[in-house]
Amino acid sequence: VCSCSSPKYFTFAHMTKKMSSNFQRRKIRVVDVQLGHRSYSIKVGAGLLSRLGKECAGLGFEKSCAIISDSNVAPLYAAQAMESLNLAGFNPVLVTVPAGEKSKCWEMVQACHEQIAKHRLERKSFIIALGGGVVGDLAGFVAATYLRGVDFVQVATTLLAQVDSSVGGKVGVNLRAGKNLVGAFHQPRLVLSDLETLATLPMREFRAGMAEVIKYGIVFDAELFNQLEQSMAKLLDQDTRTMAAVIERCCEIKAAVVWQDETESGIRAILNFGHTIGHGLEAISSYGNYLHGEAIAIGQVAAARLSEKLLGLPEEEMNRIEALFQRAGLPTQVQLNEGQQQDLIAAMQNDKKVSAGAVKFVLTASIGKASFGCQVPNELVVSTLSRLRGTA
Amino acid sequence: VCSCSSPKYFTFAHMTKKMSSNFQRRKIRVVDVQLGHRSYSIKVGAGLLSRLGKECAGLGFEKSCAIISDSNVAPLYAAQAMESLNLAGFNPVLVTVPAGEKSKCWEMVQACHEQIAKHRLERKSFIIALGGGVVGDLAGFVAATYLRGVDFVQVATTLLAQVDSSVGGKVGVNLRAGKNLVGAFHQPRLVLSDLETLATLPMREFRAGMAEVIKYGIVFDAELFNQLEQSMAKLLDQDTRTMAAVIERCCEIKAAVVWQDETESGIRAILNFGHTIGHGLEAISSYGNYLHGEAIAIGQVAAARLSEKLLGLPEEEMNRIEALFQRAGLPTQVQLNEGQQQDLIAAMQNDKKVSAGAVKFVLTASIGKASFGCQVPNELVVSTLSRLRGTA
Repeated sequence: VCSCSSPKYFTFAHMTKKMSSNFQRRKIRVVDVQLGHRSYSIKVGAGLLSRLGKECAGLGFEKSCAIISDSNVAPLYAAQAMESLNLAGFNPVLVTVPAGEKSKCWEMVQACHEQIAKHRLERKSFIIALGGGVVGDLAGFVAATYLRGVDFVQVATTLLAQVDSSVGGKVGVNLRAGKNLVGAFHQPRLVLSDLETLATLPMREFRAGMAEVIKYGIVFDAELFNQLEQSMAKLLDQDTRTMAAVIERCCEIKAAVVWQDETESGIRAILNFGHTIGHGLEAISSYGNYLHGEAIAIGQVAAARLSEKLLGLPEEEMNRIEALFQRAGLPTQVQLNEGQQQDLIAAMQNDKKVSAGAVKFVLTASIGKASFGCQVPNELVVSTLSRLRGTA
Repeated sequence: VCSCSSPKYFTFAHMTKKMSSNFQRRKIRVVDVQLGHRSYSIKVGAGLLSRLGKECAGLGFEKSCAIISDSNVAPLYAAQAMESLNLAGFNPVLVTVPAGEKSKCWEMVQACHEQIAKHRLERKSFIIALGGGVVGDLAGFVAATYLRGVDFVQVATTLLAQVDSSVGGKVGVNLRAGKNLVGAFHQPRLVLSDLETLATLPMREFRAGMAEVIKYGIVFDAELFNQLEQSMAKLLDQDTRTMAAVIERCCEIKAAVVWQDETESGIRAILNFGHTIGHGLEAISSYGNYLHGEAIAIGQVAAARLSEKLLGLPEEEMNRIEALFQRAGLPTQVQLNEGQQQDLIAAMQNDKKVSAGAVKFVLTASIGKASFGCQVPNELVVSTLSRLRGTA
């Protein structure tokens, strides 16, 4: 039944160091993303925000800069970020956008551009994204297109941003026609993931970030998956040591994949596991009812069900996958009427991963391994979603 | 008095072939722009539009594509372009924007994106810019940012686009705060410059394009400058043979400069001769009163006057420069009141070439040679503009 055009399984010899070594306590963990002259470091640790100015000073920027943040994060952390930059001799301006996915739009890009132009940012100025995935995608795209590209630094304040969107240089905004249809590849010069900022993250957002963490286990690292099964309770308690190790491991995995395939012509696609249906769900609910992580939790469970059918994913592993999302407090089911099902299929066909009209899925034959480019008939997607509902 | 930070003079050994050889008749002239895996050809000739579909078929695109054109050009040439693409098996959609610089804005980028998303353009689809500089900059930026970058082909229908904006991959739009403040570097896969489309170009636009042609003579090629002095009457009559040779030569020069410095970190700056004041004039007249070519004609005469003062450009060459612009029917003077002068200085300081607050000029010590990075005191700019008025 499998119609994958070229199922390929990937293992990375250099990625196989024991998880146990990652769980040792270190003050600042550093993951180097190797991309030639666009290489950069991701620093993970508690209290990094206060070092922002000092870290930027080491990168040779001119003094004028802009912090782009949102209405949730700015009241909590912008003052500290501004102070740190001022102390290091920078001249920052703060641009605050409304919190939420709706700010990933052209109007907001334009508003940011007009404000940073007014503050006279120049070619060697830089932009700091202070926030989660939405702010990172928006601010990164503002940086990618202002003066045909200025540097940017990301201070990731959500779990989702720390393990996923801050790594890899994908930036962009949404269209009415679909999510992330507009964007660029623009690597940051530095990413700071301050674990302390997770303390103010609403639990729902934290759980949503966990959906991406679990994804790395499913598509790449069975040992990480096992580790998550063992320590989910600790993680949901935000135990600093456990969190730091897991975030570092996720960044390592994503960095290794991006290193192999910066512009997503091949293996990088495995990171879209659960995203085809997930993006579709987000699109038909107008980017708002579901958090991204929630939508891809449902999408991943659906993709696992498809994998059972098409690639022979063992039922026991299917159940472990579903159970882990449930233990993380994430939705694994969805109720769609017939009209919504049709809208979902249409939205999936508008997803940018489509080539020559065919929707391609990432599937998994066993936990830790993924294959991409799998064609799945629409009817099977619909029946799988119905079955998800059936398990409720 | 000269405060140029590093005046440098450039000559290109491989660019010195005699102009006479360029003036031989050939059916299609081809200039290869060498940029590694982003290399592409510029084809110059009469009747190329009818070959559009065939040329695109040779580039391995998927069949869905979009033509972006404007309300002046689309009624004249879109049907022919669509037919050529259909015959070659493509499925094109036509997106028409209002003619004029005002269409180089975020709103129009968004409108184009929504339309091409509705037409389901995918990653291997492509976008064709059919028109002049505005359409090329807009459509190129739409292509650069749609799905993080799709291919684009430029059919240049104005002299300005054929000699300048279609070469080098700079694409983008304007902000209220200044011209071209937003954009990307995105090289086309092919440029077609159909000389027949110049027949429908309003004479004012044609003359404006000549301002960029003259610029290449001033900053790079004294022999081209001489040739323009000799054949300006023929050029204004649009003698096909003379036009083809001049356009080819301009593309060769720009391609050589871009080849040396794709992202404008050095020598590419010489192509901005006349543009600092020119962009300022365009900004304070809200991108409309002057055509770009007219604004940079004034800017170039002003830059030549500054060059006389600061780099010792001989008076005789100064007079030849001014006379050539006048023979091309281009403005060389400007009337500004004191408020407008201040606005102009402010607009220049908002220009994206500014670094660390200093406005840098490109100047010329003699026709055919340019130096960049020259700092010029604001007062000298103002007094030079007054003197331009004085020569009226």
